[in-house]
Amino acid sequence: MGEAWSTVNEGRQWRRLMEMGEIGAIAGPDGAQGVNRACLTPLDRKARRLLISWAAPLGLKPSVDPLGNLFLRQEGADPDAAPVLSGSHMDTQPNGGRFDGIYGVVAALEAVQALREAGVKPRRPIEVVAWTNEEGGRFAPGCMGSMAYAGYRPADTWNAAEDGDGVRFAGALREHLAAEADLPRRPLGVVEGPAPHAYVEAHIEQGPRLEAEGKDIGVVSGIQGSRWFVVELTGETAHAGTAPLSLRRDAVQDMVRAVEALNALMRDPSDVLRFTVGRIEVSPNTSNSVADRVRFTIDFRHPSADVLRERGDAIEATVRGAVRDCGVAVTERFNAQPVEFSPAVVGAVERAAKAQGLSALLMPSGAFHDAQFIVPLCPTGMVFVPCRKGISHNPAEYSEPAQLAKGTRVLAQVLAELAG
Amino acid sequence: MGEAWSTVNEGRQWRRLMEMGEIGAIAGPDGAQGVNRACLTPLDRKARRLLISWAAPLGLKPSVDPLGNLFLRQEGADPDAAPVLSGSHMDTQPNGGRFDGIYGVVAALEAVQALREAGVKPRRPIEVVAWTNEEGGRFAPGCMGSMAYAGYRPADTWNAAEDGDGVRFAGALREHLAAEADLPRRPLGVVEGPAPHAYVEAHIEQGPRLEAEGKDIGVVSGIQGSRWFVVELTGETAHAGTAPLSLRRDAVQDMVRAVEALNALMRDPSDVLRFTVGRIEVSPNTSNSVADRVRFTIDFRHPSADVLRERGDAIEATVRGAVRDCGVAVTERFNAQPVEFSPAVVGAVERAAKAQGLSALLMPSGAFHDAQFIVPLCPTGMVFVPCRKGISHNPAEYSEPAQLAKGTRVLAQVLAELAG
Repeated sequence: MGEAWSTVNEGRQWRRLMEMGEIGAIAGPDGAQGVNRACLTPLDRKARRLLISWAAPLGLKPSVDPLGNLFLRQEGADPDAAPVLSGSHMDTQPNGGRFDGIYGVVAALEAVQALREAGVKPRRPIEVVAWTNEEGGRFAPGCMGSMAYAGYRPADTWNAAEDGDGVRFAGALREHLAAEADLPRRPLGVVEGPAPHAYVEAHIEQGPRLEAEGKDIGVVSGIQGSRWFVVELTGETAHAGTAPLSLRRDAVQDMVRAVEALNALMRDPSDVLRFTVGRIEVSPNTSNSVADRVRFTIDFRHPSADVLRERGDAIEATVRGAVRDCGVAVTERFNAQPVEFSPAVVGAVERAAKAQGLSALLMPSGAFHDAQFIVPLCPTGMVFVPCRKGISHNPAEYSEPAQLAKGTRVLAQVLAELAG
Repeated sequence: MGEAWSTVNEGRQWRRLMEMGEIGAIAGPDGAQGVNRACLTPLDRKARRLLISWAAPLGLKPSVDPLGNLFLRQEGADPDAAPVLSGSHMDTQPNGGRFDGIYGVVAALEAVQALREAGVKPRRPIEVVAWTNEEGGRFAPGCMGSMAYAGYRPADTWNAAEDGDGVRFAGALREHLAAEADLPRRPLGVVEGPAPHAYVEAHIEQGPRLEAEGKDIGVVSGIQGSRWFVVELTGETAHAGTAPLSLRRDAVQDMVRAVEALNALMRDPSDVLRFTVGRIEVSPNTSNSVADRVRFTIDFRHPSADVLRERGDAIEATVRGAVRDCGVAVTERFNAQPVEFSPAVVGAVERAAKAQGLSALLMPSGAFHDAQFIVPLCPTGMVFVPCRKGISHNPAEYSEPAQLAKGTRVLAQVLAELAG
């Protein structure tokens, strides 16, 4: 098939990313332009329609599954063959960047377009996919689209999840599907249909290693596991001027005690463990009232399934042991086991990077990705490209056009190999 | 003048409080009905209009000053005499009750009405006053109306203060004054006009002492001092899955360190000191991003001016010493010195309670009140009534109709004495 990847168009891909970055654009510090494009919003739909408009001239056929996952299918020489999937997500964090997620979607389209332009006619269909709600920024947890597609959780699992305005996921999804009613519907992934042949996802690293080591391509070996929890502490509100401290049931003070104890539980001199309290909601949240309720989140990650199980299972007892005056409820919202990617796909990424003369680093992913949930279905892997200073989930997120094009060239060659 | 206080009407006062409690009514736990009536909102204006409608048949004349403080004036036999002021505030905490503030306004009106019905014709004018924004729930700090009236702060001090929706105080006040444009305007308190002769404020205790000791009336000796601060910690956001803990500048973790250190600074085995972190805002406040910014409030109170100065002045250094990775900004938003009330008014309240056969307790106030700022202007005092379990700033806040009427009878006698 020759150098199929040589037709990847750096400028076209960059212009598309910049055009996507206008949809939900926000101003960041120091002149940086970020993106706030929450899932299942009019902005999300605008981005999806833009993607479809680019795919249409290539003859790619759109379809939408019951979770809103969007597929753009290029038929193969053998239309009955299981398809090769490639993509990522189009939603962002509230204070997100222009590359996280959207790069993998635009790169998959660019790879398909490059293969066509190079005259490559794969035996298998190739489907570009945009998974619904990877970020979990509007509705927690993330990866709902890929989890439902893979049958990892039933499709109705998150119906009652609420966004910050009290809108339920079920309602937002219903509204979204109504707005997309002109697009063909397809059954829900392997729950209702056949398994794909393989899945490959391109993504910015979201960490500093590739840049620090001067590498072009991250050959991703697997993804560390993640567990998300919500802790709710319930005390009693009181007047800040009159209530004696000894008689208070102050949810803020118990939150501080709980976080201190969790820091001790999560101590890791090797600095591999990731533990984050990123969201705190206080009620009534006025300066002169003792808080009667605090909800806070725990994001805990580790490459070892044993560490993830042992320390994660100890979270509730740790919080209960630390809290002095409040009622405690700990709810696990997300549990993604560590995964190892398929040697077949990892090998294909390594071979492609080598064939193209690019420097590569075999590395695990610190962030979770939709790919994590596709692993049980079919050979799966990922391609990382460097991002500046490892910054992500931030308007300052940046990756150079040439770096992004290198990743897409590797992706194109891998897709060509897997699609046969 | 006879038993002027005997015409205080328990039922009428209770019905008025319940009618006021419908304006901004919210449902609390266990069937309790609370109130959320933020200052300078349509609900606040509705409550003010209701008050004016009750005062009009009595011939009381409304007027509004540049801070929105509302006065209802009964002329005295000598209209040139300095008036006696009595009132409180009509705004509530977001999750407030039906008595805090509004009781003092309704009681003042009831006392004036009772004196009229008893045929008492005081020499001095009596003005019922409703101060703007005592709570500080919408715009921090509280007591803006009384502080500006007393010249404690210039009237434009808080123009840039923002509510949770980003509305500035100056804009909300402008809108309010425009909506009240049909009411006569008056100059701003002692800044532009003469001092009052005396000020007396009735209020629920907001603490447990009167109930616990079985007393009818709290003879308030003074108010402890309050200092409010806002602490802003600025770190850097990062991806919760990739950023190593050792490299983070996590504003949530530094907030926990700061609160721990402040707890140590504020330790008080005698349990007299009040220290509260009641409001926390986290940015970007998503579960899988390291927080780059946390703002939290400090409410610190003590009866001793020395303690208030020494520990309050140590707050900034304590936070800076505790924080590990973030930038620190500490801003003082409110500073009310402890005050002692006038022996003349304290004595009048004691005498009235005794004359009416009520049990009384001489006590300081743990909460601050508008009265705190009137102290430098004229003889000032307060009358407390018990409230159930000391609960306030909460829908469960409750005081019995008979208790409230006893407080108003004492207030009526005190006003009659002071107005001559």
